[in-house]
Amino acid sequence: VIDRLATAASVADVRALASRRVPRMVFDFADGAAEDEVTMRANAAAFDRVFLAPRGMVDVTARDLSVTVLGERLAMPVVLGPTGMAGLQHPGGEVAAARAAVAAGTAFTVATPASHAVGDVARAAGRPVWFQLYAWGDRGLTGELVRTARAAGCTTLLLTIDTPVVGRRLRDLRGGMSLPPRITPANARDVALHPFRWARWTAQLRSGPGVQLGNLRGLDAAPADSAVGVAAWLNQLFNPAQSWADVEWLRSEWGGKLAIKGVMHPSDAVRARELGADAVIVSNHGGRQLDGAAPTLDVLPSVADALAGSEVEVLLDGGVRRGTDVLKALALGARACLIGRPWLWGLAAGGERGVTRVLELLREELDLALALVGCPRAADVDAGVLH
Amino acid sequence: VIDRLATAASVADVRALASRRVPRMVFDFADGAAEDEVTMRANAAAFDRVFLAPRGMVDVTARDLSVTVLGERLAMPVVLGPTGMAGLQHPGGEVAAARAAVAAGTAFTVATPASHAVGDVARAAGRPVWFQLYAWGDRGLTGELVRTARAAGCTTLLLTIDTPVVGRRLRDLRGGMSLPPRITPANARDVALHPFRWARWTAQLRSGPGVQLGNLRGLDAAPADSAVGVAAWLNQLFNPAQSWADVEWLRSEWGGKLAIKGVMHPSDAVRARELGADAVIVSNHGGRQLDGAAPTLDVLPSVADALAGSEVEVLLDGGVRRGTDVLKALALGARACLIGRPWLWGLAAGGERGVTRVLELLREELDLALALVGCPRAADVDAGVLH
Amino acid sequence: VIDRLATAASVADVRALASRRVPRMVFDFADGAAEDEVTMRANAAAFDRVFLAPRGMVDVTARDLSVTVLGERLAMPVVLGPTGMAGLQHPGGEVAAARAAVAAGTAFTVATPASHAVGDVARAAGRPVWFQLYAWGDRGLTGELVRTARAAGCTTLLLTIDTPVVGRRLRDLRGGMSLPPRITPANARDVALHPFRWARWTAQLRSGPGVQLGNLRGLDAAPADSAVGVAAWLNQLFNPAQSWADVEWLRSEWGGKLAIKGVMHPSDAVRARELGADAVIVSNHGGRQLDGAAPTLDVLPSVADALAGSEVEVLLDGGVRRGTDVLKALALGARACLIGRPWLWGLAAGGERGVTRVLELLREELDLALALVGCPRAADVDAGVLH
Amino acid sequence: VIDRLATAASVADVRALASRRVPRMVFDFADGAAEDEVTMRANAAAFDRVFLAPRGMVDVTARDLSVTVLGERLAMPVVLGPTGMAGLQHPGGEVAAARAAVAAGTAFTVATPASHAVGDVARAAGRPVWFQLYAWGDRGLTGELVRTARAAGCTTLLLTIDTPVVGRRLRDLRGGMSLPPRITPANARDVALHPFRWARWTAQLRSGPGVQLGNLRGLDAAPADSAVGVAAWLNQLFNPAQSWADVEWLRSEWGGKLAIKGVMHPSDAVRARELGADAVIVSNHGGRQLDGAAPTLDVLPSVADALAGSEVEVLLDGGVRRGTDVLKALALGARACLIGRPWLWGLAAGGERGVTRVLELLREELDLALALVGCPRAADVDAGVLH
Repeated sequence: VIDRLATAASVADVRALASRRVPRMVFDFADGAAEDEVTMRANAAAFDRVFLAPRGMVDVTARDLSVTVLGERLAMPVVLGPTGMAGLQHPGGEVAAARAAVAAGTAFTVATPASHAVGDVARAAGRPVWFQLYAWGDRGLTGELVRTARAAGCTTLLLTIDTPVVGRRLRDLRGGMSLPPRITPANARDVALHPFRWARWTAQLRSGPGVQLGNLRGLDAAPADSAVGVAAWLNQLFNPAQSWADVEWLRSEWGGKLAIKGVMHPSDAVRARELGADAVIVSNHGGRQLDGAAPTLDVLPSVADALAGSEVEVLLDGGVRRGTDVLKALALGARACLIGRPWLWGLAAGGERGVTRVLELLREELDLALALVGCPRAADVDAGVLH
Repeated sequence: VIDRLATAASVADVRALASRRVPRMVFDFADGAAEDEVTMRANAAAFDRVFLAPRGMVDVTARDLSVTVLGERLAMPVVLGPTGMAGLQHPGGEVAAARAAVAAGTAFTVATPASHAVGDVARAAGRPVWFQLYAWGDRGLTGELVRTARAAGCTTLLLTIDTPVVGRRLRDLRGGMSLPPRITPANARDVALHPFRWARWTAQLRSGPGVQLGNLRGLDAAPADSAVGVAAWLNQLFNPAQSWADVEWLRSEWGGKLAIKGVMHPSDAVRARELGADAVIVSNHGGRQLDGAAPTLDVLPSVADALAGSEVEVLLDGGVRRGTDVLKALALGARACLIGRPWLWGLAAGGERGVTRVLELLREELDLALALVGCPRAADVDAGVLH
Repeated sequence: VIDRLATAASVADVRALASRRVPRMVFDFADGAAEDEVTMRANAAAFDRVFLAPRGMVDVTARDLSVTVLGERLAMPVVLGPTGMAGLQHPGGEVAAARAAVAAGTAFTVATPASHAVGDVARAAGRPVWFQLYAWGDRGLTGELVRTARAAGCTTLLLTIDTPVVGRRLRDLRGGMSLPPRITPANARDVALHPFRWARWTAQLRSGPGVQLGNLRGLDAAPADSAVGVAAWLNQLFNPAQSWADVEWLRSEWGGKLAIKGVMHPSDAVRARELGADAVIVSNHGGRQLDGAAPTLDVLPSVADALAGSEVEVLLDGGVRRGTDVLKALALGARACLIGRPWLWGLAAGGERGVTRVLELLREELDLALALVGCPRAADVDAGVLH
Repeated sequence: VIDRLATAASVADVRALASRRVPRMVFDFADGAAEDEVTMRANAAAFDRVFLAPRGMVDVTARDLSVTVLGERLAMPVVLGPTGMAGLQHPGGEVAAARAAVAAGTAFTVATPASHAVGDVARAAGRPVWFQLYAWGDRGLTGELVRTARAAGCTTLLLTIDTPVVGRRLRDLRGGMSLPPRITPANARDVALHPFRWARWTAQLRSGPGVQLGNLRGLDAAPADSAVGVAAWLNQLFNPAQSWADVEWLRSEWGGKLAIKGVMHPSDAVRARELGADAVIVSNHGGRQLDGAAPTLDVLPSVADALAGSEVEVLLDGGVRRGTDVLKALALGARACLIGRPWLWGLAAGGERGVTRVLELLREELDLALALVGCPRAADVDAGVLH
């Protein structure tokens, strides 16, 4: 038999494998975005508008993909960003993905709504992981999560600022996605067309964390039976009253590294710097929040400019699918990129091995791109590589 | 059974429902535009070229979609604009749509060629409606209509200035649309494919206003049997000799609010202001008049500039299909938007409930967009939300 | 039965009729262009990038489409340009088309390689026609043609300058087009699919001028049997040595109006003016000569600028399919437009009646466009109508 | 039977013939490029964005397509560039192609990884050929190749600088391409669909050089059985440590003409000049190395500017498919173009005759383009022909 993961030649190939491995609604839960998905497509398209100016005859024997991000040496400038409920894609969930990340020498971020608890992930990974937070209205709850992260040995907190309310993801509405999953008229056709796929997935769901949220299970506010109405319970936690005062508070509570995720305007970048953030992450939530938000690669230069001369690091999230995408982001001012969907596709396609394959592909592609563009060290990339 | 209206996740979904509910020629009568429909497509496409720059950590708990337009407090910056013969889409016609508008807290405009008379609509709505006029050659006729509007308690008149003659709408020519409707070679295939749809629609047509024009029935000039040659009779009323003198005259006849609809040039905006208009509506008649006219969103800034510092309000009409479209229009200088096709699609898809669903969707989407862009009050939106 | 010509709602509809009326290779002979047809498509696409800024409340009762071109009053700013061998499309050929042009109040141009002789066309038309010339190497031959044109009462000569050699029209090469026509492997499939179409067309060919070239029949240099190798004989007449000296010579030979057709550069426009031309025609031969030549609408402003203040008139040829295209050309500096393919499509679709329909459509569309843009006289159109 | 080569009307037609003549994986080996093939497509698309401004009435009787490139008079400004293993496409390989080139009066380049040895090619061609080199780590090996080239009478060396490592060509990975070729799951479907095509190709492979590399066979480092693992052996020769010092060394070793191929940045062009190069070739390896590299036509002007006033010649490689493409490249600063895929398609389609047809087509097209643009001598083309 063909080992399709090993022969996947790009992240797009891994995505195709994922789409044939899990039910459509589960694939779409990761693959989709808000409303007309204009921003999601624009994120990826922005990379294709940037062209490179390779230099020849540079000694590129000693390629070095490593970068230092928030005090950590990463083997490549690609961090696994936070995504919710990876356990839906594969029972290995965040544990499997974090193992793949650590094996690849890079950082993994546990989202608050992760399937697995951050402590379990960190233990399995054998290396500190990052933890993502929302500024929920109930600071007690947020405080509990901060303490959990500290206990799990996390080095870095990511505070997501683009989710005062949750975006409208039409594929979930149209495809019958619900937590816990149910067979409805909207997904019945997919069940009928792919019964074995559904059967396998349902069995897998039972063997893993299912629809539980590992980080929230023990919390006071959590419903007794978290299998009931997970999505609804989760959504009411989002806090439309979140404000920069929450950043101040978190900064005072947390001595580790703090990154602000969801910065889409230079003035928000400046504000984050003033409040002591160590990094800002240019992100539009992969197009899953405000459809019509600008593509992140287009926003990156203005944010990098606003922070030029400061210690605050700039990371880029959104639309990264290729090694050359990473190269272009570095050239435009990012120190590293976050990926979301790519690792979920890898997870769906083959658990830990699938995530490893995604990282291998990005590493190989970036390694090649650094060699071919004539700039062998990722840390040295600047606008000089651009046409 | 699935309640398709309730599960419609966007105005595009409602449009799809409408297309399966009424005969093709009736759908196309609302959906189509002039000649090659370049302007219609450009109207919508213009919104996709504008990107947003969301801000995080703004307290958006108290969203306020309301705006004051022409002295009226509207619950959302979306007004139902004038369209002809809504009764063709559903027997409820303008009466049903106006009820939905009032329930949603916004204004409804009765077109001169509406199916229902403005008085009937106003009574059913239980709130003053707006009335749309053409500057017909026979001022006696126009004067009668003004008196009718006054008697119906209308607060605002819209004078449409872009229709000295009627545009060539090729779908009507090619699809066999005629008033009264007849089965012709051009629509025979649709009848054959969808006999029940035609039967239901024909029955509905008999139960409502049919092809009668409520506002014109009683007028002296109207044909004895308005069911014969409605379109032809209507077309000869349009007045190629219309001029700004008609605006002056109307301004002297009408003490209420006066909006000039169809302004596509800053100098027309200035003229409208000089003649005492309270508002101008940037509109190309949804692309139904001059194909090749610029998209209204592209024209909007120059009109808003021309009126900056004056009391004259600017409204935008054309291509609004999303809450984020409304947000972008406000950011570029509009105080509110008009919608035309969207409410006709809602009407075709489900009568009053369909129109209500369209308004719900736009309200939900705009509410979300205001939250996510970090500007919770519609009245505060300005160019700062743009990338 | 449906009268498809009468119900054709646009020139595009007439084109569709033509494509179903004559053999594919005959349709392609008129419809195709050089090499990859990039320029042909660009000609048409250029119009869609130009948007209009309509004004309201202008009295447009008295529309006046007429313009004065080269001393002639034309009922509309649309002239039938020169095309070769119209008799292939319909036995009526140029005679039929010229009658339609005259009935519509506009000028008709007889090409040198026309099917019918210019004298016959002029007699049938009952009004002077224009005549198109190439600057052939044999001035004796060209001189004969000038005398023929004079004898036929022509008012205007068009000298085509863009054909030192003939472009490579791949549809003709691939589709098996030859003069006289033969059934070859390249067109056998079309013959098999549409035998009646071929039979009718073959019969028609016999009833009209066939493959004869009316203007060249009597000339000394013509082959005894012009039915043999017409194309080959014709092609060797083109003169790669043509130069501005030929324009000087022609100017001295011809006292009537002289238009230079194929001007694509301001400096050629200036040269034409210096040599006494009365008009220049911005044309890339409909994309049939140099594929990659700029779209004529994009070239027009620079040519109009170069001739500003002079008496030399500017005409636009290429891609005109709509009344609004004519309006845009006038706005960018043209006094009138030439059409080529549109009248050939009309001819193929229905002989004289087909050409009449094309002119009716363009007239109706332009009349409407003038009304809707708020500029009722064609002669008054300027850049003020553009967005 | 139809002689499809003779009736091929464009290089695209020849490509289509090639695709039906050899196995899919063999066609893709030549036709494909790196990763998403963005750069390959951009190379070709760049030509379509450049428009021409033809002049009329220029005497173009005496067209002269010849140019002097690196001291050689070429009958046309199109050189056959280096490509690997042409013997896979047709047993005639480089020998056949060089014969066609010489017959057309132009230069042929033998690549280091050619199927036939440069000596054999030169002998068969009866005219000096060019030879392409990589700056391999083992200078002894490179030195041997230089001596071989000298012995074969080569006039010009091309040093490719864009291949420190080899790009990822996904069609090869996905299509089962391997050297020697094997039937794998990836190409089994193509074998099943086109068994005769495969049988013919397999037989041809045995009758020609097969998978042997003529220039490397006799070298010390070559594997005993070059049929085993050719690709793997070849790939390890590429030298990531290559540097401008290699250019210096080669310049000192080689007294003939030296062209640096793969220049994509003005500063590399300057460096090449400083080190004594006679020409630079703007090339991104046909998009086969760094996907995302800028299109070469877009890079050309900046390289030409950087070398303005010097003796260093500029050539353009990438995306040339038409005579007008050559014209545009000349207009933007190139002295001549290289073609790669076009001659491989010709070879696959019909051996020497196929290559001859490709060159005939380009010659005919360029000849025509020079006539039609009004600039009869290729050597005189400059930016004046551009719109």
